[in-house]
Amino acid sequence: MQSTQVRLVSRPVGEPADDDFEIGTADVPELADGQVLLRTVFLSLDPYMRGRMSDAKSYADPVGLGDVMVGATVCEVLESRSDRRAQGDWVLAYTGWQTHAVADARHTRKLDPEQAPPSTALGVLGMPGFTAYGGLLEIGRPQVGETVVVAAAAGPVGSAVGQIAKLKGARAVGIAGGAEKCRLLTEELGFDVAVDHRSDTFRDDLKAATPDGVDVYFENVAGTVGEAVLRRMNTYGRIPVCGLVADYNATEERAGADSAPALMRRILTKSLTVRGFIQDEFVPTHHKAFLEEMTAWVADGSVKYREDVVDGLENAVDAFRGLLTGRNVGKLIVRVGPDAT
Amino acid sequence: MQSTQVRLVSRPVGEPADDDFEIGTADVPELADGQVLLRTVFLSLDPYMRGRMSDAKSYADPVGLGDVMVGATVCEVLESRSDRRAQGDWVLAYTGWQTHAVADARHTRKLDPEQAPPSTALGVLGMPGFTAYGGLLEIGRPQVGETVVVAAAAGPVGSAVGQIAKLKGARAVGIAGGAEKCRLLTEELGFDVAVDHRSDTFRDDLKAATPDGVDVYFENVAGTVGEAVLRRMNTYGRIPVCGLVADYNATEERAGADSAPALMRRILTKSLTVRGFIQDEFVPTHHKAFLEEMTAWVADGSVKYREDVVDGLENAVDAFRGLLTGRNVGKLIVRVGPDAT
Repeated sequence: MQSTQVRLVSRPVGEPADDDFEIGTADVPELADGQVLLRTVFLSLDPYMRGRMSDAKSYADPVGLGDVMVGATVCEVLESRSDRRAQGDWVLAYTGWQTHAVADARHTRKLDPEQAPPSTALGVLGMPGFTAYGGLLEIGRPQVGETVVVAAAAGPVGSAVGQIAKLKGARAVGIAGGAEKCRLLTEELGFDVAVDHRSDTFRDDLKAATPDGVDVYFENVAGTVGEAVLRRMNTYGRIPVCGLVADYNATEERAGADSAPALMRRILTKSLTVRGFIQDEFVPTHHKAFLEEMTAWVADGSVKYREDVVDGLENAVDAFRGLLTGRNVGKLIVRVGPDAT
Repeated sequence: MQSTQVRLVSRPVGEPADDDFEIGTADVPELADGQVLLRTVFLSLDPYMRGRMSDAKSYADPVGLGDVMVGATVCEVLESRSDRRAQGDWVLAYTGWQTHAVADARHTRKLDPEQAPPSTALGVLGMPGFTAYGGLLEIGRPQVGETVVVAAAAGPVGSAVGQIAKLKGARAVGIAGGAEKCRLLTEELGFDVAVDHRSDTFRDDLKAATPDGVDVYFENVAGTVGEAVLRRMNTYGRIPVCGLVADYNATEERAGADSAPALMRRILTKSLTVRGFIQDEFVPTHHKAFLEEMTAWVADGSVKYREDVVDGLENAVDAFRGLLTGRNVGKLIVRVGPDAT
């Protein structure tokens, strides 16, 4: 059997280009004991992947040149040599940008399609949802009546942050690009206010949206949006830092005045907590509670989610480019193969 | 009775100049019930005072033009109309840059000269010592075997940070300017290593001094020293931010590349905690324990301290300028009046 794969062949400079990747096929290896043969149904596209394309030092190793791009997938088990998984099972795996793969059964998590649509394991019930849950509750610690601000609020992390903040009794202010996303935030997702960062009046709008200042800023974009929110932070404010999408394609340091001294001054004079995190950190302590609580919230409709499904592995690179510039609304997923057997 | 006072008459631009202040006299008001008449023996000079001279927004209001400069003092009670204090008592007060003042007895703390020299209430047993204690133990949380780095390490906060870190089983690395201060750190104060930030090989020396990276960086200087330490931080490192002396006299934003994105990237990829604080925050929960523990450490010699005493209120402005450029060694104190009656 053959797998069709998207491989990284050069390290992107700035925005990833088509010719930074190649599409090819490779033989799928024979199954060994304990392994499963998987057919990819859904591939998750996430901002962290930009970091893996680069060889700058980070918290995880880069993808090697010539290697298949990494990524979380929802797969169907075609064949099993493990007691843990049976043919026909739906599983969450980490098999990357390809149509078929062999994996250790222990490295997959079985999904129950009766409980929630399997694709949610890549979004609201997966890594993005858990990033929101762990970072907001453990670092942000929103209290009843406090104001929580999140940017990229129409994305899978941001929309979960806002909705969990509401469930904890806080006021949720979402920042997004464009009127359509802003409407989604207030009309569908229950945010108290939405602010359009593309508007000329963004800073004034943000000020009006946060009359009592900001207690928690869930940082996933940085850049000028992050700077604007920083000015609104209250004393003892908390800033979980989970991503810096605005800078991911940056090819050079921003010129002009150095804003780091102003940032440090703000941290000092407002007694702010700025805390970077990768969701892995919270897995041992919080993942079980997350799955139980979030599955219940999704089931009873108190947490809603949006998916943006792109068809075909051959469209993954272009879809990924759109992810970094805010083209999609909701969790971006590539449908790699038919989602019914 | 008259008090000689140093008053702020214009807001310094950059380094405070002599003519930003005037020395004059004023009548000391009559004592009301509950008040004490105080004679200043020692005046504390501390970096935070630079912030009070400026009208930029901060955690405390600026000193008004024409007003006496604020500051902590150790005083002798000349006259009392309160049951709480008696004539001849030594007290810690906050009467500022002047020779005499009237204060509410409740706003003074009685000092026991038998237990420790009264001047220590301005340094190792006062606000600087408590800043070190609260920030290091509550935010830095050094563990046995970890590496703690502090800059301005020969100053009253830094020297306490290093010595408390050692008492908690951590490795203490001090950064200071010049060979004399560096010798003081290792030979008198028990730091494991001292690094001279004025040396051309500072970055290499810092690297050699922290072979296992840095777990806690107690930030009280910022600038290029802070940036160099940031590069050495380990995953889950903690950075209590208590001061930014390198920037206090800055009159314009530093030009060149913006270093804020690199700072945020480091926070994210290393899961760092950066937390600003003002020592007041820890008073309700930690001040009693601090006084007990630190007084015992000073008494048994496990925490040592240095004082740099300048004679005469008329020399306070010049001494303060030296404080911001690292001229003094140890806690800077002005002897305003004779320290024996």
